[in-house]
Amino acid sequence: MNTSRRDFLKTSALVAGYGILSPSLARAAGVDAIGAATMQPLETGWEFNRTTFGNPWEMWSLHAAGWEAVRLPHCFNHRDACDPDSLAYRGQGWYRRKIKLDNPFAGGRALLHFGGAGQRTSVYAGNTLMGHNIGGYNEFVVDLTSAERDSQGEIPLAILCDNSRDIHAIPSDVSDFNLYGGIYRHLHLVYVPAIALELLHVKSEVTLGQPAQCSVLARLYNPEELTTPLDLAVVVTAPDGATLHTENLRLQPWQGMRELAKFIVGDSKLWSPSSPALYQCRLTVRSQYGEQVSTRRFGLRHFEFQEHGPFFLNGEKLFLRGTQRHEDHAGCAAAIPDDITRKEMRMIRDMGANFIRLAHYPQAEVVLDLCDELGLIVWEELPWCRAGGGDAALRSNARNLLKLMIEQHYNHPSIAFWSLGNEEDWPGIDPGDGQVSVAELMQQLQNLAHELDPSRLTSFRRCAPAMQIPDAYSPSIWAGWYHGRYQEYTEELEKYRDQVRHLLHMEWGADSHARRHAEEPYGEPYLPFGPASGEQPEFPLVKYGDWSETYACDLFDWYLKAQETLPWFAGSAQWIFKDFSTPSRPENPIPRVNQKGLTERDLTTKEGYFVFQSYWAERPMVHIYGHSWPVRWGKPDEPRLVRVYSNCDSAELFLNGKSCGAKTRNTQDFPCAGLRWSIPFSEGANVLRAVAKKAGITVTDEIHFTYQTTPWEAPARLLLAEKSRTLQGITVEARVVDRHGTLCLDARNRVGFSLAGPGKFNDNLGTSTGSRVIELYNGRAEISFFPGAQPSVIGVTGERVAEAFLTIS
Amino acid sequence: MNTSRRDFLKTSALVAGYGILSPSLARAAGVDAIGAATMQPLETGWEFNRTTFGNPWEMWSLHAAGWEAVRLPHCFNHRDACDPDSLAYRGQGWYRRKIKLDNPFAGGRALLHFGGAGQRTSVYAGNTLMGHNIGGYNEFVVDLTSAERDSQGEIPLAILCDNSRDIHAIPSDVSDFNLYGGIYRHLHLVYVPAIALELLHVKSEVTLGQPAQCSVLARLYNPEELTTPLDLAVVVTAPDGATLHTENLRLQPWQGMRELAKFIVGDSKLWSPSSPALYQCRLTVRSQYGEQVSTRRFGLRHFEFQEHGPFFLNGEKLFLRGTQRHEDHAGCAAAIPDDITRKEMRMIRDMGANFIRLAHYPQAEVVLDLCDELGLIVWEELPWCRAGGGDAALRSNARNLLKLMIEQHYNHPSIAFWSLGNEEDWPGIDPGDGQVSVAELMQQLQNLAHELDPSRLTSFRRCAPAMQIPDAYSPSIWAGWYHGRYQEYTEELEKYRDQVRHLLHMEWGADSHARRHAEEPYGEPYLPFGPASGEQPEFPLVKYGDWSETYACDLFDWYLKAQETLPWFAGSAQWIFKDFSTPSRPENPIPRVNQKGLTERDLTTKEGYFVFQSYWAERPMVHIYGHSWPVRWGKPDEPRLVRVYSNCDSAELFLNGKSCGAKTRNTQDFPCAGLRWSIPFSEGANVLRAVAKKAGITVTDEIHFTYQTTPWEAPARLLLAEKSRTLQGITVEARVVDRHGTLCLDARNRVGFSLAGPGKFNDNLGTSTGSRVIELYNGRAEISFFPGAQPSVIGVTGERVAEAFLTIS
Repeated sequence: MNTSRRDFLKTSALVAGYGILSPSLARAAGVDAIGAATMQPLETGWEFNRTTFGNPWEMWSLHAAGWEAVRLPHCFNHRDACDPDSLAYRGQGWYRRKIKLDNPFAGGRALLHFGGAGQRTSVYAGNTLMGHNIGGYNEFVVDLTSAERDSQGEIPLAILCDNSRDIHAIPSDVSDFNLYGGIYRHLHLVYVPAIALELLHVKSEVTLGQPAQCSVLARLYNPEELTTPLDLAVVVTAPDGATLHTENLRLQPWQGMRELAKFIVGDSKLWSPSSPALYQCRLTVRSQYGEQVSTRRFGLRHFEFQEHGPFFLNGEKLFLRGTQRHEDHAGCAAAIPDDITRKEMRMIRDMGANFIRLAHYPQAEVVLDLCDELGLIVWEELPWCRAGGGDAALRSNARNLLKLMIEQHYNHPSIAFWSLGNEEDWPGIDPGDGQVSVAELMQQLQNLAHELDPSRLTSFRRCAPAMQIPDAYSPSIWAGWYHGRYQEYTEELEKYRDQVRHLLHMEWGADSHARRHAEEPYGEPYLPFGPASGEQPEFPLVKYGDWSETYACDLFDWYLKAQETLPWFAGSAQWIFKDFSTPSRPENPIPRVNQKGLTERDLTTKEGYFVFQSYWAERPMVHIYGHSWPVRWGKPDEPRLVRVYSNCDSAELFLNGKSCGAKTRNTQDFPCAGLRWSIPFSEGANVLRAVAKKAGITVTDEIHFTYQTTPWEAPARLLLAEKSRTLQGITVEARVVDRHGTLCLDARNRVGFSLAGPGKFNDNLGTSTGSRVIELYNGRAEISFFPGAQPSVIGVTGERVAEAFLTIS
Repeated sequence: MNTSRRDFLKTSALVAGYGILSPSLARAAGVDAIGAATMQPLETGWEFNRTTFGNPWEMWSLHAAGWEAVRLPHCFNHRDACDPDSLAYRGQGWYRRKIKLDNPFAGGRALLHFGGAGQRTSVYAGNTLMGHNIGGYNEFVVDLTSAERDSQGEIPLAILCDNSRDIHAIPSDVSDFNLYGGIYRHLHLVYVPAIALELLHVKSEVTLGQPAQCSVLARLYNPEELTTPLDLAVVVTAPDGATLHTENLRLQPWQGMRELAKFIVGDSKLWSPSSPALYQCRLTVRSQYGEQVSTRRFGLRHFEFQEHGPFFLNGEKLFLRGTQRHEDHAGCAAAIPDDITRKEMRMIRDMGANFIRLAHYPQAEVVLDLCDELGLIVWEELPWCRAGGGDAALRSNARNLLKLMIEQHYNHPSIAFWSLGNEEDWPGIDPGDGQVSVAELMQQLQNLAHELDPSRLTSFRRCAPAMQIPDAYSPSIWAGWYHGRYQEYTEELEKYRDQVRHLLHMEWGADSHARRHAEEPYGEPYLPFGPASGEQPEFPLVKYGDWSETYACDLFDWYLKAQETLPWFAGSAQWIFKDFSTPSRPENPIPRVNQKGLTERDLTTKEGYFVFQSYWAERPMVHIYGHSWPVRWGKPDEPRLVRVYSNCDSAELFLNGKSCGAKTRNTQDFPCAGLRWSIPFSEGANVLRAVAKKAGITVTDEIHFTYQTTPWEAPARLLLAEKSRTLQGITVEARVVDRHGTLCLDARNRVGFSLAGPGKFNDNLGTSTGSRVIELYNGRAEISFFPGAQPSVIGVTGERVAEAFLTIS
């Protein structure tokens, strides 16, 4: 292997980053010209090794050394991203398998299509470098047509993914999320004719009250520069399947993007969150080399963002109710199975969101497809994050990745904002050689985005020195979490109203340790809330809260309440829908997890999810706070607060079968929009039931819990017991008691689980029940393990408390 | 950071690999011109992080992420080289600390002197690359004089050691030993005047019966090309301290090596294993910039290696009795403390060796110093190992490293052979681009070695297609281990006698699992040995033996016996003195350890050490086989073999105080040179005592053991018990018993230790008592752990046996 850097780039420039043949779309539409043979998912037969190799020859030749069978997609940080003992691996990971080409097109081309791989990828056939891609979040294609075969006629395919830290790459290594490695999106082997379609864009211009103007543009993949004429057929269909337009052409192969058809749509079905109507364009490219049929979906919609004012969609004001998403999930990290992605996106939609920020990088095609289908307006983002103006190599990477994001996701009607990046005023960014100012690079990117796509707005979150450059801008406001009190939210937001042309508020919220609940989230003594109690509470200045779900719910509640009162305000996106891993924050209750999610890292809902649903969702719902709070506490007969979240006009609460009265919902009656009851519980077991009605539909919720009146002293010793047993493993629960054996219900000791014997923890998941180092939630913590053929001994230890062991099989 | 590859190499070429100011010599001699200030060991104040960073800026700036305080020397594979669960890390490791320069020489230079670091090293001051070295086993110097200081006047020093696999590097990644990473040899900060000595060689030519002809040559380090005249003083002293020669010169600074003095030594004290006489040469370089005094030791000796015949030193035939050494030790890997190195080299000398191969790379200066002092003739080796002819970059590396090895170790009188490499006929070596044949590269290296040092022989082990190129050659003969039977050794050796001009036999021996002993190492039924029993045994064809120490001792015994009968044979070197780690061999009884050592990886002797001592050592010794064999077995009254190794003329054995008779030593009476007794033991406790005499000195040895007559069935369950407790931790012992509770004394189940609770195993040591995955030795295995503040539970599990747990504090 002797490829110089120069050859490397040359090869890469030839093939990298071309968004041809978007696999998910083509598959969804089932329109392959000559059947499944033209596109094969390459999921099985792979072996993986997370180490460095000098070249593919070494990789195939060295003695057995850590190769494991894997299935793609695969992220090589799937288990170490939340390892409490060490940082996620940053380095080389090698994949290998042999493939046999069987091209149905005579003289056709065989392409590897990557949906995305982190963070830099080199593809080798034997020892020959076939292609290289820089960037963890874009599609790219490597042409295998000329690859050398071995004596069995197979191509020994070696794929190196490298997520070593790289000062020229974006996002930067200062980022507060993991820069994952691996082939973590779909990989396909694609056969195309010798002349094929590479890129297909449908442009549309919607003027309210007039027919929409549309055009179809295409670029060819014709590396041999063949000159055979092409027969082209364009068919456009409406959301109901009716044919809107057809066009047949015979053309010589061309270079670059070329307009193939123009048409107007009279009675447009406009795309919106409440009615995500999708049109389709089908292009057939036929030549003596074969026929290729490609389909793309597109939508017709009209955006308007008033200066210093609200956002309008299709002429109607639409408050942007958003959250955010990282591509990260317990147990698989970035390689999220599509069904989990679908579940997550539906949960976001069911929460009532109409807006999502794909933080902080372009996400998998399936995510954009789901945004189109579910009606989520998208802020998609270039991963220019905490990297500074950078040197020439960094700037070139940034421009290239912006171009690829826009090219590859152009047709998605859900996308409204091309975000140029995030937090580029972060302190202490690399003052490297040849660096330009952040504003200079931002202006370059702003110009490029407008040149490539004048139809959408650019945006940026947090970059004070350059806030006037992007079309839309979000400052950093974290009242009640990183600074100040949540009651100061409106005041902080309004400071920016006149400063920023198009203001959005991206990122707000609070960390919460799932399953941690507080009777008094603001400290002793218990302070009653808001107008219902007839007095204004005296909130202490809370900087980081108590990491309880209770505090986070109140904060969410306050922000949502406040946002309803600001007619000038365009919208916001809460940070973040799901807990995610990060290289920083090892001291968090779950080490290395950003715990600001409305769900845990495995999509288990936290209570906060229902606060949002109560404000945003249409479908009737009611939720009593405390589903993961098994023991509440207080004095005998002391009134305890019951929070109920509902979008119904009123709700009635029942304690142990007896009504506590009905209350009417008023969003400005904080907290819980007035749906709260201060009632004494019975010693021991209690049942709470809420019943609410909306538009004639009744919804109910019920929780069971114990009420403890015995006070406790300092935590003295841990207890460990089996809690449940399923096919997924055995769950044990640790609890802490004082010297009298009384449960310490507010204890938050950090504990560690350990295991002797043949079993294995199901850990490093970054969840409240999947981390072997964790802070107790209300004096307890769970973990599950897979038993071995013989019993194991589980241990739990913590500082200043006596340990416990449990033998279990 | 924007250093291109070209700058990199330029910088490197400026300063890399210059063997100036050998620190260990200068320190030993205590001759610094202006005191300790001119040379400071940089041992403390370092932090280390084993991960990738984009550049030093990132390294200093990213959030706290795995930095740990370390002391140099430091090998970053010190704990993972023998990890049973994963391969040793191959990648980046970063060291950082700030240093303040305080140069006593006005206008002088400040240099970092590395004794060696693996495998490629980049030194940064701030973000500026100051020097780069390719190669894991050579000294090199980086000039810090011009380094930028921070606002506190300190240099933020960042040192990147990278042991990623590299196809252009030697040794190749196919090598059967770990290519370690880290600053694993001494690092010094050295101040020198603006014009200083860089390299000092003393050449000598010894003709038997005539005065030795000597000359002193020197090269300057004068990067500013100053032209101030220099006052030079050469003083040569004899081993007894008497001044032999002085010379004073005034010269203009010169380029390259220049002869400064010539002298003859009349009544030479020749260097030899029995009398390692060392001369000394002191050179003072004085200018207006300051004075520098340097000393080098050298020796006078005469080698002759007869064609197809024996080796002569100083005119006398000397059979080369050798072993081999890797730079590897339990718990520290390549960063071996000097006192352990001293202990190891003395153990080698005390075993009776007069010859050592430094396998497979130049070793630390202290090793060469010890060879000089202890009288060990050295085969030092270029790490051209299993790499093939290679491409241009590999060949350039190989030539450069050969040049550095010869330049840096030229003065050591112990070195007789410059080995050009090892196993270059290994199958399946990378057929890379631009590769030349192995023979072509070997011829280039052969020519270069002779050009640089005509006074020594070149050598090579195992490269059949090029065996005629090096001056001396060793084929691969492993009779009784990798092929055939040990009884075929002489026959195999003699095949090469006429084929090879200068034949040595490097590498022979057998793996042995320390503490595993066999009553019947050749399988059932027990076969008696050699002439003493009056019949020739019918040995089965043993390919890999039974990995017992017993089998290995017999093999060693046979080879040593055979070698005594071959007057034409020059000598050999057994493989290897100490167990060492390797990336291959995960299936070994101690995973990833090459167990062919005469000692464990922590220098605990195995029984084989004493077999060698019985043949080679002068000082009287006697050793009863079985010091680590607590329970022997057999039928009641069945004769059992007792092996005794001694260099005395005769020995007497006592069982439980009663004499079993005296026997006379006869090296050709295999095994044990006739010192063996076949006697029945008592059921239960036994004591064996041997008494031997040589030249009026009596030596004794005694072992205590149990004799078990109860036969056992298949291993059924494990037992676990505390065995001992010291400041170094608590040792537990696992034993396996059958369903009746009888110890299974030949059981070799693979078991795993695990731990719940706060303690930590002292594991990954690659020893029989320091690996948490291990094959049982005679039905048992030990491990130690450091207890925590509260009790821990230790578990031991194995296939097809019931596990055991033990709570211990």
